[in-house]
Amino acid sequence: MLRGLPEDWTHAHEGGETWSPFDVLGHLIHGEQTDWMPRVRRILETGDSRPFDPFDRFAQLTASVGKKTPELLDELARLRAANLRDLVALGLAPGDLARKGRHPALGVVTLGQLLATWVAHDLDHIAQIARVLAAQYSDAVGPWRAYLRVISGQPG
Amino acid sequence: MLRGLPEDWTHAHEGGETWSPFDVLGHLIHGEQTDWMPRVRRILETGDSRPFDPFDRFAQLTASVGKKTPELLDELARLRAANLRDLVALGLAPGDLARKGRHPALGVVTLGQLLATWVAHDLDHIAQIARVLAAQYSDAVGPWRAYLRVISGQPG
Repeated sequence: MLRGLPEDWTHAHEGGETWSPFDVLGHLIHGEQTDWMPRVRRILETGDSRPFDPFDRFAQLTASVGKKTPELLDELARLRAANLRDLVALGLAPGDLARKGRHPALGVVTLGQLLATWVAHDLDHIAQIARVLAAQYSDAVGPWRAYLRVISGQPG
Repeated sequence: MLRGLPEDWTHAHEGGETWSPFDVLGHLIHGEQTDWMPRVRRILETGDSRPFDPFDRFAQLTASVGKKTPELLDELARLRAANLRDLVALGLAPGDLARKGRHPALGVVTLGQLLATWVAHDLDHIAQIARVLAAQYSDAVGPWRAYLRVISGQPG
């Protein structure tokens, strides 16, 4: 979706403190580094007795400085592949999905919920990236704007 | 996004008459066959004197019957690649983007608006597919639901 796009498009956002696709990539990278697999391991090691470390939603604002979108795409792909290899290597059984952990704000959660959220979180940010990219075409599409829910915010 | 997913996931929708990712693929295929390039050609051939043929938003409900998601993905990729080759072969110049056509409902539009809409329309349906897929995980993510805008509908 982002490979080959001009940097000014991948850096455009919805105004104010909202994130660009470039910011989202940095956020996903930080999640691969500090969130998903470290939390899987925390559950397996200490159950719900020790909460997950809080996730820094703004780490990418400094970590991505000076990088280009293709670098972030490569880094995300590499980290995700390594994390999925590590996940498979854990050899989890269906029964493990009910194992409990503790989220610092949400309280008790299960390993299954964590893994489902890893997937849904990707989808959340894919929808966001589509919306932010489309917003740059709000004027370019002219009267078709009315038919494009991703731009109008209304059901098409 | 959809390659390799189980058919029951790509056929799931948001209830009622809403579309599944499978339905969206059929809609995108029908657009490649009857909408984008035929409208480009209509503008180049007759300007705004003859309106575009209306687009059938429900054609895929019959055209996709009996097909599987991977077939639709292959068909869409093939049609899109052929259409992009045809578009390049037209050798359009920047000045051509202002050429006018007539949409049956929206009235006068430009070739540039049509091409921008081809892109934004993809993004609209990518956001939709992400949302519809994520909706199948509404329960599976447990309390994380509150943080997932794509599921909650609220800014995360």
